[in-house]
Amino acid sequence: GTGADNDLYINQAVVFIEDAIQYRSINHRVDSKSLWLYRWYCSRTCQWILGLTITVILALAFIEEPSSLTVTSDVRYRLPAWNPPCGLTESIELLCFLVFLLDVSVKSYLIGWKEFWKNKWLMAYILTLIVSFTDWIVSLSFFCTESVRIRRILRPFFLLQNSSMMKKTLKSINSTLPEMASVVLLLAVHLSLFTMFAMLLFARTKDNQQDKEWVVYFRNLPDSLTSLLVLLTTANNPDVMIPAYSKNRAYSIFFILFTVLGNLFLMNLLTAIIYNQFRGYLLKSVQSSLFRRRLGIRAAFEVLSSLKETPANAQQLYVSTGALQQVLQRVEMDSRCKQTIMRSLKMCSCDQLSAAQFQKLFEELDKDAIMQHPPSPEYQSHFMQKLQFAFGHPYFGYLGNVVALANIISICVVLVLDADKQPSERDDFFLGAINCFFILYYLLEILLKILAMGLRRYLSYPSNRFDGLLTVILLILEIATFAVYGFPHPGWRPDFMGLLSLWDMVRLVNMLIVFRFLRIIPNMKFMALVVTTLLDLVKNLRAFAGILVVVFYAFAITGIMLFKGAVVPLGNTSIIFQGKMGFHGSLLALRLRVFTTYLFSVNLICRWAKIYFVAWWLISSVIWVNLFVALLLENFIHKWDRRCHRESLSDIEYQRTVELMFRDVLEEPTEEELMEKLHQHPHLQLCR
Amino acid sequence: GTGADNDLYINQAVVFIEDAIQYRSINHRVDSKSLWLYRWYCSRTCQWILGLTITVILALAFIEEPSSLTVTSDVRYRLPAWNPPCGLTESIELLCFLVFLLDVSVKSYLIGWKEFWKNKWLMAYILTLIVSFTDWIVSLSFFCTESVRIRRILRPFFLLQNSSMMKKTLKSINSTLPEMASVVLLLAVHLSLFTMFAMLLFARTKDNQQDKEWVVYFRNLPDSLTSLLVLLTTANNPDVMIPAYSKNRAYSIFFILFTVLGNLFLMNLLTAIIYNQFRGYLLKSVQSSLFRRRLGIRAAFEVLSSLKETPANAQQLYVSTGALQQVLQRVEMDSRCKQTIMRSLKMCSCDQLSAAQFQKLFEELDKDAIMQHPPSPEYQSHFMQKLQFAFGHPYFGYLGNVVALANIISICVVLVLDADKQPSERDDFFLGAINCFFILYYLLEILLKILAMGLRRYLSYPSNRFDGLLTVILLILEIATFAVYGFPHPGWRPDFMGLLSLWDMVRLVNMLIVFRFLRIIPNMKFMALVVTTLLDLVKNLRAFAGILVVVFYAFAITGIMLFKGAVVPLGNTSIIFQGKMGFHGSLLALRLRVFTTYLFSVNLICRWAKIYFVAWWLISSVIWVNLFVALLLENFIHKWDRRCHRESLSDIEYQRTVELMFRDVLEEPTEEELMEKLHQHPHLQLCR
Repeated sequence: GTGADNDLYINQAVVFIEDAIQYRSINHRVDSKSLWLYRWYCSRTCQWILGLTITVILALAFIEEPSSLTVTSDVRYRLPAWNPPCGLTESIELLCFLVFLLDVSVKSYLIGWKEFWKNKWLMAYILTLIVSFTDWIVSLSFFCTESVRIRRILRPFFLLQNSSMMKKTLKSINSTLPEMASVVLLLAVHLSLFTMFAMLLFARTKDNQQDKEWVVYFRNLPDSLTSLLVLLTTANNPDVMIPAYSKNRAYSIFFILFTVLGNLFLMNLLTAIIYNQFRGYLLKSVQSSLFRRRLGIRAAFEVLSSLKETPANAQQLYVSTGALQQVLQRVEMDSRCKQTIMRSLKMCSCDQLSAAQFQKLFEELDKDAIMQHPPSPEYQSHFMQKLQFAFGHPYFGYLGNVVALANIISICVVLVLDADKQPSERDDFFLGAINCFFILYYLLEILLKILAMGLRRYLSYPSNRFDGLLTVILLILEIATFAVYGFPHPGWRPDFMGLLSLWDMVRLVNMLIVFRFLRIIPNMKFMALVVTTLLDLVKNLRAFAGILVVVFYAFAITGIMLFKGAVVPLGNTSIIFQGKMGFHGSLLALRLRVFTTYLFSVNLICRWAKIYFVAWWLISSVIWVNLFVALLLENFIHKWDRRCHRESLSDIEYQRTVELMFRDVLEEPTEEELMEKLHQHPHLQLCR
Repeated sequence: GTGADNDLYINQAVVFIEDAIQYRSINHRVDSKSLWLYRWYCSRTCQWILGLTITVILALAFIEEPSSLTVTSDVRYRLPAWNPPCGLTESIELLCFLVFLLDVSVKSYLIGWKEFWKNKWLMAYILTLIVSFTDWIVSLSFFCTESVRIRRILRPFFLLQNSSMMKKTLKSINSTLPEMASVVLLLAVHLSLFTMFAMLLFARTKDNQQDKEWVVYFRNLPDSLTSLLVLLTTANNPDVMIPAYSKNRAYSIFFILFTVLGNLFLMNLLTAIIYNQFRGYLLKSVQSSLFRRRLGIRAAFEVLSSLKETPANAQQLYVSTGALQQVLQRVEMDSRCKQTIMRSLKMCSCDQLSAAQFQKLFEELDKDAIMQHPPSPEYQSHFMQKLQFAFGHPYFGYLGNVVALANIISICVVLVLDADKQPSERDDFFLGAINCFFILYYLLEILLKILAMGLRRYLSYPSNRFDGLLTVILLILEIATFAVYGFPHPGWRPDFMGLLSLWDMVRLVNMLIVFRFLRIIPNMKFMALVVTTLLDLVKNLRAFAGILVVVFYAFAITGIMLFKGAVVPLGNTSIIFQGKMGFHGSLLALRLRVFTTYLFSVNLICRWAKIYFVAWWLISSVIWVNLFVALLLENFIHKWDRRCHRESLSDIEYQRTVELMFRDVLEEPTEEELMEKLHQHPHLQLCR
């Protein structure tokens, strides 16, 4: 019936508008049941459960055997890690697999069979699930004693496929690969030609005194390659050339040529290529988000226009305001936005909306959320007004900064004086008394500021919240110290008492004071610019960080599997690089470029380790760092260019998003583009 | 009289056109005698003498005491360096000072007194000369035994002031300094806050086993600062955190946070800032060169137009072609250009030239010098034509590359097989025989190519010249080897004979063969692009390299003066960092970031050394490398963007200059700008 039809249309419009708000694709089924399923699937609870499942399955690595979630990494001291009984982690895994199975079936159903066969990500998802489940069965049938667990390497895929941002970023990286491969090829040619030169230059001679270079670094082809590769990372920079240099200065030309060509030219070429590729990346992604939003709104308009019976040959379609109000009431969106749209809808005298008017109503979604600080309280008393002026003035804030600086300097002085003292000789009286005074000042400052600004206005500034929170913590710590150890007096150095020793308490207080000093940041223009750029960058980098986590996880698991049981004493240090070092250690080892240290002792392990570490170096240190630099350049230059435009608006704080940063360069999609895309929709049949 | 006037005008026009050709400023005196002096001063001989003088005074450091121009840098083996007698270097210096004095007086005279007082560079030049000369007198009166020689630090100034490119670059760098200083300040804040944290975290404990971190890296404030500063250079990367990490894994968070914030964010921020500042640098400098050229031409037009007696109220000025021909005959310029201009002047039927026509004539100067390769010889015989087709075909070149690759692989195989053999066990027969065969093939290839292309066409390709030269050298070496050691036969390993042993000869041949393999570069598109970018970059970097040399020189001399006599045994190695290590060693030490190694043992020297090395690291490693990256990005992205445009023109080789690269984005200066600038000329009185 028409009533059911109308209800369907309204439902469709609701879902399309929600898609637009969330920048989602609208290419899903649009019949009543599917719409219900879609809304359920996109609901916060559902997505939260999915996210939790992914987190759980990734986190399993920390408790699975071999794991090393212990305090110390030193094998001599650490206790054996807890090994979960067979079946515990496996049953958690099974639960996760079931959730993923549900996820993939709902997703496949919602996009429809035709689209399913075109979607490689979904196919890969199903394949991964099948392989993982098979591996899981094998694992259980061996009672968890099998050594190779493929499903652990596959786990990060679940994280990857769940984020459209990461998939998009991966596509971008993928398109840069050919050029990156060219540079890596160039690097390989560079390396191999210089290796040959080196082997010819530093050949074995008859005089054993003279061929130190040969003995240590260029004994054979793998050694020479390794020496020069490590020179490319600059880890063995002066050492590798010292024997040759002390024989004849001219040998240094070889090393300088190698370093300049390799490090200065080729490595930076990689930066240039990646930057060139990613220059438009942010803009492009924001542009496609905008397109999705406009498309969702337009789709809602089209289905709503089908509600009214308009003549088929009408030149323009219209939507009744009543229908739109009905839709808006059902849409889940930011309440401030909803109210604004409702209000403008009421203000509009017409009861029919054209496509342009409809689109215009929803432009509220794109607008800045201007944060207005609540007003200061208005005092009647003349004295209070004077107080308010004095303590609300920026100079009072500057005074606070100066006091904080004085506090830091006093701590620094005490640290320098006490640096070489034995713990038993230390006297905490001076520092205790000084800190007590400073913390009282900080408390007073907060109270006066609240008096001047009112609590609500005070709390509306992030820097005040930071400041206040730290001061409260400091106060609590100080009170606790006095309660346990009494007031400061000369010779105030009791031993351990309660949870923390006095010394630890004082140290903690000092650290918090140093940390609190960061409140000066918003007061320095350049610093504020840098910090906001960095924060923006962190937002934009989420997708990259996700991909890094994926690569990371796969590498760590591979590393554990490869080096299982290989115990290698490393020089005089007691670090032991062992297969059992486990997930945690492996992560850290990778992260810290320990690579360069290990590579030297790597002959002791095996060739595989060398290849593994080189691959890791290329991916983490070279490619990822360059990606990061490219994004930083992009972000920073953009911000720098418009610094002057924004300076006048310093009092209004914008909730800045990437979308807003690019607003003035974005192109609005044309009506033709939108309609063409709508007609390509696999499930929506438009009347026209 | 009018004749003398006319002669003066013609002379002025000649000089202005020469200024335009060389992109020189036209703001010099324009009377007859000054013009003669100016042409003499700008003549090649004069400038060559000046350049030589600068080279000589800079090179003095290599032979002055303390110098170490010896083969080995190992103090145990090396012979005492030759110390020139007192008065030798000093008299050379005096000669140089006299040349500089002449230079500065001519320059000052030519720009005129008014301008002189505005020109800070000239004032500084005179001041430097006075200080240097005073120091020279002091030096002589002490019979060269005084220890501090200020004039040696001042020497690089002579290099700096002689290059307008370097002065311009320095100005650009100077304008970036405030922002760089902000980032360096941020780095300093970052460093000092983290140092305080570190000192609080890694304080001395009662258990001596537990405070390894404190003992080694954070004993007191200077130690802590140094440790973290070196961590910023990543030189002590995993080592510094190992003791703390093995105590408690959580300590690694501190180091990771420090490295990520400092290295990843702040250091790259510096790159971003410098790139942002230098983005338009090349374009701007090319634009101002263009302006100078147009201005010179315009000035020539204006003075030539005064020749004819035109009515004062004429709307347009004209220049007679006869006068221009007279001028052109006297101008020193590229003969090809001159001929082209003369030809177009004759083709022009009119005998009067307007300003636009005049300007247009000289546009020939901006044009690409299109290098046409000479034609191949045309053979009558059908057989010869077939041969010509076969050996002129690119496939023949590819075959040559494949053969060169095969040669390299064979050398590589022999190297791998022989790697561990004692020199006495080696048999050079196999390699000798193989190389003999390959070199014969290379010779044949050259001859066949010359047959197909003709000698002149063959030599017109740079890759062929490279190939041919190396092959000829290889042939000579091979013939010399056979002449001394006979033809290869099993057991071909005679001992030392003649200048080089057979083994050295074979090594040299092999190296040349590896080097010759670089001929494949033009055949690989991406490689060719990279190499041309790098070559362009080298051209553009001359000014930066010059400034680096200046900084370098000053640092090396300061280093020698600071560390005179400080002998520091460094760990187990026998390198001795000593004041007497001299200029050469000091240069090298600086260049190779030995800094990071030295900084550890630097406590042994003194605080000054630390500050010296940190300053050097900041300037060379941080700022200069970032400048380099910025220029590379600029150059590469520019080139990359227009790669597609140029691909069709692959057969025609352009003599590419920076000017040409930017031609389509350059803006022509307007007539008003030119005339305004001309009216500001301090010495030229235009009639209008």
